Amino acid sequence: MAIAYPHFIASDKPPVVNPPRISPLPSPHPPPPPQVILTQDELKKIAAYKAVESVESGMVLGLGTGSTAKHAVTRIGDLLRLGKLTNITGIPTSRMTHELALSVGIPLSDLDSHPVVDLAIDGADEVDPHMNLVKGRGGSLLREKMIEGACKKFIVIVDESKLVEHIGGSGLAMPVEVVPFCWKFTAERLRLLFEEAGCVARLRRDGEGGEPFVTDNKNYIVDLYFERDIGDLMVASDRILRLPGVVEHGMFLGMATTLIVAGELGVKVKNK
Amino acid sequence: MAIAYPHFIASDKPPVVNPPRISPLPSPHPPPPPQVILTQDELKKIAAYKAVESVESGMVLGLGTGSTAKHAVTRIGDLLRLGKLTNITGIPTSRMTHELALSVGIPLSDLDSHPVVDLAIDGADEVDPHMNLVKGRGGSLLREKMIEGACKKFIVIVDESKLVEHIGGSGLAMPVEVVPFCWKFTAERLRLLFEEAGCVARLRRDGEGGEPFVTDNKNYIVDLYFERDIGDLMVASDRILRLPGVVEHGMFLGMATTLIVAGELGVKVKNK
Repeated sequence: MAIAYPHFIASDKPPVVNPPRISPLPSPHPPPPPQVILTQDELKKIAAYKAVESVESGMVLGLGTGSTAKHAVTRIGDLLRLGKLTNITGIPTSRMTHELALSVGIPLSDLDSHPVVDLAIDGADEVDPHMNLVKGRGGSLLREKMIEGACKKFIVIVDESKLVEHIGGSGLAMPVEVVPFCWKFTAERLRLLFEEAGCVARLRRDGEGGEPFVTDNKNYIVDLYFERDIGDLMVASDRILRLPGVVEHGMFLGMATTLIVAGELGVKVKNK
Repeated sequence: MAIAYPHFIASDKPPVVNPPRISPLPSPHPPPPPQVILTQDELKKIAAYKAVESVESGMVLGLGTGSTAKHAVTRIGDLLRLGKLTNITGIPTSRMTHELALSVGIPLSDLDSHPVVDLAIDGADEVDPHMNLVKGRGGSLLREKMIEGACKKFIVIVDESKLVEHIGGSGLAMPVEVVPFCWKFTAERLRLLFEEAGCVARLRRDGEGGEPFVTDNKNYIVDLYFERDIGDLMVASDRILRLPGVVEHGMFLGMATTLIVAGELGVKVKNK
């Protein structure tokens, strides 16, 4: 379902419309009609706000991590302050989201106390045509997967740059969380698993040549880059998980129930 | 292959033979022939020494953890000191084995430097008729699995009390290493996976009611107890590994290449 801009967003603020672009050369034609030029961050916000329309008072909510999810968290905080939502319990997917949610006034809990989550809203780094995702470029894939795997409904919010033909298709990383013990050995075994797909495996570091990036769970991240399609994702998933030393990977397969994509031409909502 | 005691062991010391047992009551029959009564620890030692016969100079060796494996480590140290073995590189499977191996003079390395291991020798908590194992009651299952999974040959050494009809058949724990984050949630999901097998899931603690036991990798252990056979072990393995929050489990499937069992009647060696 495509919803034409600017009607798709339940925002309190009117949308920002840029002035019409003026051609630098004289033209016999009249100037084009006013155009809306949205930044990537504005698109993320649009998708996030659309997702928050599904939040109802009394819900236990999985709160995602990253530049798109933060708009959803902030929006939920706004609606709580305005009294339009009440009795919300948030389950944050990272320490960063924990801090943000507290700062905007969302009461928090965890999976031990709330093992059933009504709805999670989170961004993704890649979305394939079957709504399989790559997540965790922000480094919190394990907690995200635990919480989003416990959800009745999981809404994924992205701008259209995240849509790919196949997982790995963006040329960016598919992260794998590994134990620090003998990480080089594990990285090499991961690379060998996908050698036919032209896989490169790199330890994630804090800056070029810096210390290894450490996850919330005190593990490392090995980023996998694929030159070609890796084939059946469930098979790939099991092969990765069977490697001792691997804690979790960033492919979220069959978990998303709704996808909200914001693009220049509007918002698309796709249900499973 | 069964080898009759006392010919099965390449020991420098003669086997200890207990004095014949004397019946407390007068008997018309002559006393029975001398019997060898071996403790469980002596049986473990016999299996360990038998396994060390496969060690050759120049090998990279995976050094196991636990009460049986420690006899193998000590024996390898003895043979190095005696000059019967040279140029051995040990890869310890735990901090405890690291300390022991250093103390008996075995030069050590790790998988990052030696990704191919010639031979590993380790004990097991359970061995089923297909040479599938349960390991990790000592808490170092992850490092053991990484190292023993990298071996050309993996000799498992047990006394006969470890043989079971099916995994879990001893009534003792099958350990699962989990991230500390929301461990209760993960423990409950593990229990539900095997609800039909009457599964009970318990966090391992340092003593009754103590702090959670922490692995070498800073994780927790959830011990699973099964009332009944859990069925296809590869299926069970994948189901466990697919749970986010699970790091590794203690089933070692299809990994052992040789099994050495020491019992009252001798040593049995079974090859894959």
